Amino acid sequence: MQKIINNPKLVVNEMLSGFVKCHPGVVVSPEDPRVFSLRSPGRTPRVGVVSGGGSGHYPAFIGYVRPYMLDAVAVGEIFRAPPAETFLHAFRAADRGKGVICLHGNYALDNSSVCRAIELARQEGIEVRRVIANDDVAPHKDANSRGLAGEVFLWKIGGAAAARGMSLDEVETVCRRAMASMRSIGVGLSACTIPEVGVPNFDVVEGTMEVGIGHHGDPGITTYKLRPAAEIADLLMAEILRDADFRAGDDVSVLVSGLGATTQMELFILFDRISEILKGERLKIYRSYVGNYFTSLDMRGATVTVMRMDQELRELLRYHENVCL
Amino acid sequence: MQKIINNPKLVVNEMLSGFVKCHPGVVVSPEDPRVFSLRSPGRTPRVGVVSGGGSGHYPAFIGYVRPYMLDAVAVGEIFRAPPAETFLHAFRAADRGKGVICLHGNYALDNSSVCRAIELARQEGIEVRRVIANDDVAPHKDANSRGLAGEVFLWKIGGAAAARGMSLDEVETVCRRAMASMRSIGVGLSACTIPEVGVPNFDVVEGTMEVGIGHHGDPGITTYKLRPAAEIADLLMAEILRDADFRAGDDVSVLVSGLGATTQMELFILFDRISEILKGERLKIYRSYVGNYFTSLDMRGATVTVMRMDQELRELLRYHENVCL
Repeated sequence: MQKIINNPKLVVNEMLSGFVKCHPGVVVSPEDPRVFSLRSPGRTPRVGVVSGGGSGHYPAFIGYVRPYMLDAVAVGEIFRAPPAETFLHAFRAADRGKGVICLHGNYALDNSSVCRAIELARQEGIEVRRVIANDDVAPHKDANSRGLAGEVFLWKIGGAAAARGMSLDEVETVCRRAMASMRSIGVGLSACTIPEVGVPNFDVVEGTMEVGIGHHGDPGITTYKLRPAAEIADLLMAEILRDADFRAGDDVSVLVSGLGATTQMELFILFDRISEILKGERLKIYRSYVGNYFTSLDMRGATVTVMRMDQELRELLRYHENVCL
Repeated sequence: MQKIINNPKLVVNEMLSGFVKCHPGVVVSPEDPRVFSLRSPGRTPRVGVVSGGGSGHYPAFIGYVRPYMLDAVAVGEIFRAPPAETFLHAFRAADRGKGVICLHGNYALDNSSVCRAIELARQEGIEVRRVIANDDVAPHKDANSRGLAGEVFLWKIGGAAAARGMSLDEVETVCRRAMASMRSIGVGLSACTIPEVGVPNFDVVEGTMEVGIGHHGDPGITTYKLRPAAEIADLLMAEILRDADFRAGDDVSVLVSGLGATTQMELFILFDRISEILKGERLKIYRSYVGNYFTSLDMRGATVTVMRMDQELRELLRYHENVCL
């Protein structure tokens, strides 16, 4: 395992230690070493925005604790959901008296932790709502779509909505609409190695690729022969466009995220073709983001997310562009 | 080769095509498809800031064409210096009547292209000075230190100095001082694969690491048994501290850059120990940056850069934090 680590059991602790030294604007909760929040969240009462989940997805989740995005996050072990108490502590850290919205991925253990934490928060008088990211179009045996990098759009939209002073009802409503408006799919060209395990969790045979891959080192839905980038884009976009009800003339925003060990060069090559496909469908790109936005340790591959915009979503997505950070 | 590409000979063209579609603030030069500059550089006459070099180092170079950093870049093929004409076209694109500073890495072909381009620019009445990044402390056979990720500090300093309205002389002086104040070293845990070649350019044996690695897929100076992250940090920092004349009580800024396929988790673990070492030396960290700032395709590994600060360097390094982008 060619990794720059110390004790494989301590990678999350040591990563968090390095992170806070590098980011003085983020502080660890005095009551929970796995909860991080904004040092200077401002004094205006507004909705708090929380997310969280297992580690290994950097910049998700902790890297999005920043003004106009997440107020606090609950951090779990590699690919493992944080316990309910950690989410509860994150809700407390984000609470400014106007309720908290929790925007998290659709995974069984995250779901149960968040549900339990919401009950506990209610007993303390903190009202928490949640919107679950389920943007993956790849069909899964449990019939529940997983969250992929669409969470990043959700955090941008939710964070901006809270910063604009929208009520908890309003923030929830616009986040639900954003989630219903987006679709994602992933492709994997290699597996990833969990430090504590030390070997890749499955093999992607050289010359093949896995379509419908998730964020947790799980294999895809279908194995294909590795194709040129343009054909990979065609394949992924066909899945997205089949599932979505985008219409000619709509405008959309696009997020192409690397999975950790893919070069940015490849992501731009993939995006180049995606933008041509969207043009062919008469879908106009409003904003596009290409980079390592939601990773899966050192997996090679990418996820593509497309979100249909409306007037309010446009205003919220560009909200942070108009303010000084 | 598990990569998302089309024709390996066209990766740079296609990457650039995707990049400009994603970044509407950056435009291609009408006279040279390998020159990119700010769409809205502002009308105030000031020094123009240019860099450039081979591709494969994203976000270097094109990703740093942004307000208060680079005004224009010359883009070469993978790991290959752009020709003199391309640098000349970048100088033209950056020229606002107050001269141009070219901040580039110390590589033979970059040096000769830039030198020739400076002569050509002079004939057109554009005065261009250059400051060469040679921050690598690893000893090389040609006795000339290479540039590593220290270029990123140089661009931040030079870009801020130009934005503040400093003269070409002043920008050159502060950039030279910044470069003299910094030291870097790299460690590689795997080689990288140039798409046109299709196989890694050398092998890093599993269980070993190469110290003194460069940015061009070249092996390091010394091969070591792979050590825990803390010992890697000790080794790298010993080289930096031996070469630099930092003194107890100085403050320094730190940049830990991934080489492309290293997880951010590992970079934070490495930085965590580096910050402890600096503390032990009574060197205070002014600013720190941890991420993929200057990569080498899909190489595993990292570079560490430490720069001693003075009052002017502090002001320039934080300059962009105080302005709306």
